Amino acid sequence: MLELRLVQGSLLKKVMEAIKDLVNDANFDCSATGFSLQAMDSSHVALVALLLRSEGFEHYRCDRNISMGMNLNNMSKMLKCAGNDDIITLKADDGSDTVTFMFESPTQDKISDFEMKLMDIDSEHLGIPEAEYHAIVRMPSAEFARICKDLSSIGDTVVISVTKEGVKFSTRGDIGTANIVCRQNTTVDKPEEATIIEMNEPVSLTFALRYMNSFTKATPLSSMVTISLSSELPVVVEYKIAEMGYIRFYLAPKIEEDEDETKP
Amino acid sequence: MLELRLVQGSLLKKVMEAIKDLVNDANFDCSATGFSLQAMDSSHVALVALLLRSEGFEHYRCDRNISMGMNLNNMSKMLKCAGNDDIITLKADDGSDTVTFMFESPTQDKISDFEMKLMDIDSEHLGIPEAEYHAIVRMPSAEFARICKDLSSIGDTVVISVTKEGVKFSTRGDIGTANIVCRQNTTVDKPEEATIIEMNEPVSLTFALRYMNSFTKATPLSSMVTISLSSELPVVVEYKIAEMGYIRFYLAPKIEEDEDETKP
Amino acid sequence: MLELRLVQGSLLKKVMEAIKDLVNDANFDCSATGFSLQAMDSSHVALVALLLRSEGFEHYRCDRNISMGMNLNNMSKMLKCAGNDDIITLKADDGSDTVTFMFESPTQDKISDFEMKLMDIDSEHLGIPEAEYHAIVRMPSAEFARICKDLSSIGDTVVISVTKEGVKFSTRGDIGTANIVCRQNTTVDKPEEATIIEMNEPVSLTFALRYMNSFTKATPLSSMVTISLSSELPVVVEYKIAEMGYIRFYLAPKIEEDEDETKP
Repeated sequence: MLELRLVQGSLLKKVMEAIKDLVNDANFDCSATGFSLQAMDSSHVALVALLLRSEGFEHYRCDRNISMGMNLNNMSKMLKCAGNDDIITLKADDGSDTVTFMFESPTQDKISDFEMKLMDIDSEHLGIPEAEYHAIVRMPSAEFARICKDLSSIGDTVVISVTKEGVKFSTRGDIGTANIVCRQNTTVDKPEEATIIEMNEPVSLTFALRYMNSFTKATPLSSMVTISLSSELPVVVEYKIAEMGYIRFYLAPKIEEDEDETKP
Repeated sequence: MLELRLVQGSLLKKVMEAIKDLVNDANFDCSATGFSLQAMDSSHVALVALLLRSEGFEHYRCDRNISMGMNLNNMSKMLKCAGNDDIITLKADDGSDTVTFMFESPTQDKISDFEMKLMDIDSEHLGIPEAEYHAIVRMPSAEFARICKDLSSIGDTVVISVTKEGVKFSTRGDIGTANIVCRQNTTVDKPEEATIIEMNEPVSLTFALRYMNSFTKATPLSSMVTISLSSELPVVVEYKIAEMGYIRFYLAPKIEEDEDETKP
Repeated sequence: MLELRLVQGSLLKKVMEAIKDLVNDANFDCSATGFSLQAMDSSHVALVALLLRSEGFEHYRCDRNISMGMNLNNMSKMLKCAGNDDIITLKADDGSDTVTFMFESPTQDKISDFEMKLMDIDSEHLGIPEAEYHAIVRMPSAEFARICKDLSSIGDTVVISVTKEGVKFSTRGDIGTANIVCRQNTTVDKPEEATIIEMNEPVSLTFALRYMNSFTKATPLSSMVTISLSSELPVVVEYKIAEMGYIRFYLAPKIEEDEDETKP
């Protein structure tokens, strides 16, 4: 039997909003350590990895490891019916082909239960090795989202270049070129306004803006985003989830034949 | 001659927003007692009844009973031009085929008059007898609107079941099932947050969500909604209008052949 | 070389929003006195004139007069990437076929530069003589915008009639007629709430509402609008731009064969 009670139910609502446009169907994996998901996007270009550790739940009962296939669009429809302050409990009986989402209003005056059919989904779990990155940029998530959106009005790809001084986001399109530089900045009033750059060596990589914009749907989950870059590895765009886990997006850089032209 | 002056003109704006999607053309009936309307929706399934008592108007002059046929969409276009704080006066000369809406801004600096052609509309006035209901639910109107909207993302019909403990709204669709229970609750800080259930006998009835959602367009008119249910009668969904009247929606229950299946 | 630094960069963003739907391509003229534009709308009915005086810029360097042809839609896309509190600097080298917009965030942590191709645009500069007007109406810009929008839901043209007492906006359409009267009013708490009428002789002119609505896109630039009317001249709808200039829209009155009918 599975029973996971999450007091801050809005986190689960935000997680669904972050991934439902990227992934159609996915297996949620439950074990003693936590509730997790790993899935490729529908065009098999980007990878999403989600972890919600068991300690983050008020009550976490998972008698045996279980993998539950869900249609994320349908799951999102149900979670949208939860209030932002509701407690969400996820329940499944052993061997059942359904999962139940229970929503409790803060005053306990309104109790909802939504039952959804589970699906059989083939999926292979990729081992993602810990890696060393050339550069790690930590910056306000809203700033990163704004930059990706702004550059999309000019071009289709973004070149992310990191030096000790800052991180540069560049694009080029029919109407012109754009460069946005964010400087390293640690002397801020609030820690979540800092831009922090850890760099072992300079790096400059090109990515499709379409995916970057999709990743920024996770912005409501965290005020900071961490971007880890290495020339031989997919970029990792990570949003921490309030003390209990993370959502990570992986995307391979574009190898552009005319890359020199794209670099402004 | 007819001249009705309503200081809280926004009420009339809200009334139009509440019914214009449900009813295309309707006769407004004026008499010494008040300004009223009774109309079937365009598919002849639901009935709307509106009453604004003469005492609620600052000035109410109606020399003889008169029935004025109006296109509600056009009337709504005109009332949208009134400011939310405007005083609205409705005027018609005897025998005239037009009606005039006059809007006065609170400072009297801006005076507008909008003249609209009246229409001849055949309509029969249904006598609606006072009835005894099996159960009457009084609950926050925003909560009821939210429930109807949420259930619409899952199914097409709602089963409303009342017991002494509470009222249950249920639906069923391709992606699963949903049940929302609101408990009787009278110990609240503000009276408009209460959920009050008067029950003579348990009742469980099925309705089309499309109509229920349409009725909830009246939510801005009142913080409370009253739902009166009886197994042999149409449900009545009533919104009181600030001391001066009400808007009531009537809808016959669906007789479902597979009703047992629908009951979760 | 050209380098214009505007601390209140949001002004330039608002100017673009005000004119980009009316004008596709236009020449921006730079001289020692200021940055200006004059352009017909794409259907050659209305004229826009913009002036930003050099004194309004923190830094203004314009070595020689220059005319820069720009696609306003593309320019608007780039300016939308500036934050509302950003400082905007416009730069062009002598003989260059590009212009650069630089955006600096208030904290200087984020610096963007957007480069856009210039265009060759044929345009003749019309001399607009200073004229005497029969009537000049100064009123809150939001009120004027609301009136134009409201009347558009009833008819296609507006008759603007000025008397000493006030200004009347009228329209007529299939569903009826509308008259909105704004009274002269100078005894207001805030000067920007006043409606002030200077009148030499009464005037009544008809205009296409489509254009009037387009002009009101400039509303965010100024809390007041000035409407100058004369029976032999195009109307001038003017929005002042914070101490540094203006945007003016010119539109010829309609000569309606059935004008008497249109007058309510």
